[in-house]
Amino acid sequence: MSQYLNYAIQLAKMVDGQTGVNPPVGSVVVNNGRIVGMGAHLEKGDKHAEVQALDMAQDKAKGGTIYISLEPCTHYGSTPPCVNKIIEHGIQKVIYAVKDTTLPSEGDEILKRAGIEVEFRQNSEAEALYKDFFIAKCNEVPNVTVKVSCSLDGKQATDQGQSKWITNKAVKQDVFQLRHTHDAVLTGRGTLDSDNPQYTTRIEEGKNPIRIVLSKSGQINFELDMFKNPNESIWIYTENETLKTNIEQVEVITLESCSINKILKDLYKKGIGRLLVEAGPTITSEFLQSDFTNELVLYYAPKIIGGSGNYQFFQTENVFDLSEAPQFEIINSQMIEQNIKLELRKK
Amino acid sequence: MSQYLNYAIQLAKMVDGQTGVNPPVGSVVVNNGRIVGMGAHLEKGDKHAEVQALDMAQDKAKGGTIYISLEPCTHYGSTPPCVNKIIEHGIQKVIYAVKDTTLPSEGDEILKRAGIEVEFRQNSEAEALYKDFFIAKCNEVPNVTVKVSCSLDGKQATDQGQSKWITNKAVKQDVFQLRHTHDAVLTGRGTLDSDNPQYTTRIEEGKNPIRIVLSKSGQINFELDMFKNPNESIWIYTENETLKTNIEQVEVITLESCSINKILKDLYKKGIGRLLVEAGPTITSEFLQSDFTNELVLYYAPKIIGGSGNYQFFQTENVFDLSEAPQFEIINSQMIEQNIKLELRKK
Repeated sequence: MSQYLNYAIQLAKMVDGQTGVNPPVGSVVVNNGRIVGMGAHLEKGDKHAEVQALDMAQDKAKGGTIYISLEPCTHYGSTPPCVNKIIEHGIQKVIYAVKDTTLPSEGDEILKRAGIEVEFRQNSEAEALYKDFFIAKCNEVPNVTVKVSCSLDGKQATDQGQSKWITNKAVKQDVFQLRHTHDAVLTGRGTLDSDNPQYTTRIEEGKNPIRIVLSKSGQINFELDMFKNPNESIWIYTENETLKTNIEQVEVITLESCSINKILKDLYKKGIGRLLVEAGPTITSEFLQSDFTNELVLYYAPKIIGGSGNYQFFQTENVFDLSEAPQFEIINSQMIEQNIKLELRKK
Repeated sequence: MSQYLNYAIQLAKMVDGQTGVNPPVGSVVVNNGRIVGMGAHLEKGDKHAEVQALDMAQDKAKGGTIYISLEPCTHYGSTPPCVNKIIEHGIQKVIYAVKDTTLPSEGDEILKRAGIEVEFRQNSEAEALYKDFFIAKCNEVPNVTVKVSCSLDGKQATDQGQSKWITNKAVKQDVFQLRHTHDAVLTGRGTLDSDNPQYTTRIEEGKNPIRIVLSKSGQINFELDMFKNPNESIWIYTENETLKTNIEQVEVITLESCSINKILKDLYKKGIGRLLVEAGPTITSEFLQSDFTNELVLYYAPKIIGGSGNYQFFQTENVFDLSEAPQFEIINSQMIEQNIKLELRKK
């Protein structure tokens, strides 16, 4: 077994988080035991990975094998079907790691009719990469990651709302990385008012996410830092039809009902493929109770806060039977300078 | 610190072993926190990594940062200088991981005069990748890996020369991978006569190395399998001026003295950047005593062979003082289905 399929998957991972509602895909073209082309899908609307790799290979693709992290597409989207391009370049064999369940399943047939050998070589690493993409595309909602920084007893702040530096600077750096790999960050008005955050990505070559504010009442203080230095677009979701602003880069989106479902559908239509929720207990709890949370990232500081728990990150009106409490699978646990990071997936 | 320099190094590693006497280089172009181009140097004579990445990025390179695993070149070789291409594309910052000690050191200056920020960000993983390349380029000889399969008591065969399957099939697979990442395999006439080997790379998309036979006497049996199915060129180095053959793909190279030094210089001129030595005790010992062995790969089978040791892999006429015995550094040790693989570097 050659390394080339793994290389295609590595290329896909390099562009994970910059392809919006499109999947991150990597591709390598090999001929006579040498890589003759490599590429990745860099951005929605840009060339697909196969096309980038075939463009690099040019004539050297003829008679070669193309390795792709995901099944090649058969449809005219913003670019022509990749299977056509593969056929035109005289590729002899196609090997891909994951079946694209969102496509009509005739791709293999089209390639085979053109005399091309096709191999679906299942790969669990690549499957993990696309799992959320398929769910998102099928439901037409973004992948949602909920991020919570809290004390060991599950509180985002003291009863008085004091929360600055519950976690440390190293966690802050890690959060910058999280923001970099998401298209947008969603928060609520309460967090804006109390923390005056910027939601930027202060790392080298960091990509600032689009800022999304959910405020049903629409009582927005436009004097906050975020509105003064708009590094990226800010979209405000509200039920308040009178909310208006002249600030460039700020768009007010009025919905009759600002339910999570409606907001997520709208975000997906606008090209948001990965959404990070960084909010207070109300919005956090709403997302965690919904069916729309794919991943939960928890940062625990080694403190216990106590009090009556006004800022427990998960608060619900209903009392769950223990057997019905939301259940997670731990994907990763890591110590970040005396803070613990847990990455979990909703079961 | 962003991941992009690591990505450039990963790309370089993907093409390690297919660039002949040229170094494997990878490059990533980033703008506004997104990868807009990626590439690698695929083959000697082909575009450099920076050019591939800039070609992919096109206009999107303007104002961006280019990450390169190795310092960009400043000279006209088979392609124009990469620093020119970087300047033409309006790149704002260049970050590279290893200084190319084989270049005149004015590259940074040329870029800086063009108003480009330059950062040499030292990286030990990339340094390891280029260490042997610099030595080889400076001495104009290939990197040499000596491979030995032997018993626990250091013998390649019994006194009678019986050697088939000292090691197992899993080791054979690993050797195929070694061949794939070398441009050529060198052996002697004795090994040809006793083992009748093919020196092919029977893995998926395996690249067959050029076969090199060292036979001072020139007593070659052209009926052997290797000459019947020449999958790749065969070059015979001999001191016998009468040796001739009509077999296509076989080239006889007559040298007055077939010393390792002379052969290696000639191989480097012919484009061999990485040479694998798979030979019997005489040639193996000659290489291990020379200054030209960069790496030693040992496969130990869990057997003890005994006898008088006609086929001990290291045999010398001189008796070394123990303090002068060739000394190695263990880079890696690995169990391969009940055989032990040791990778060592000569100190």
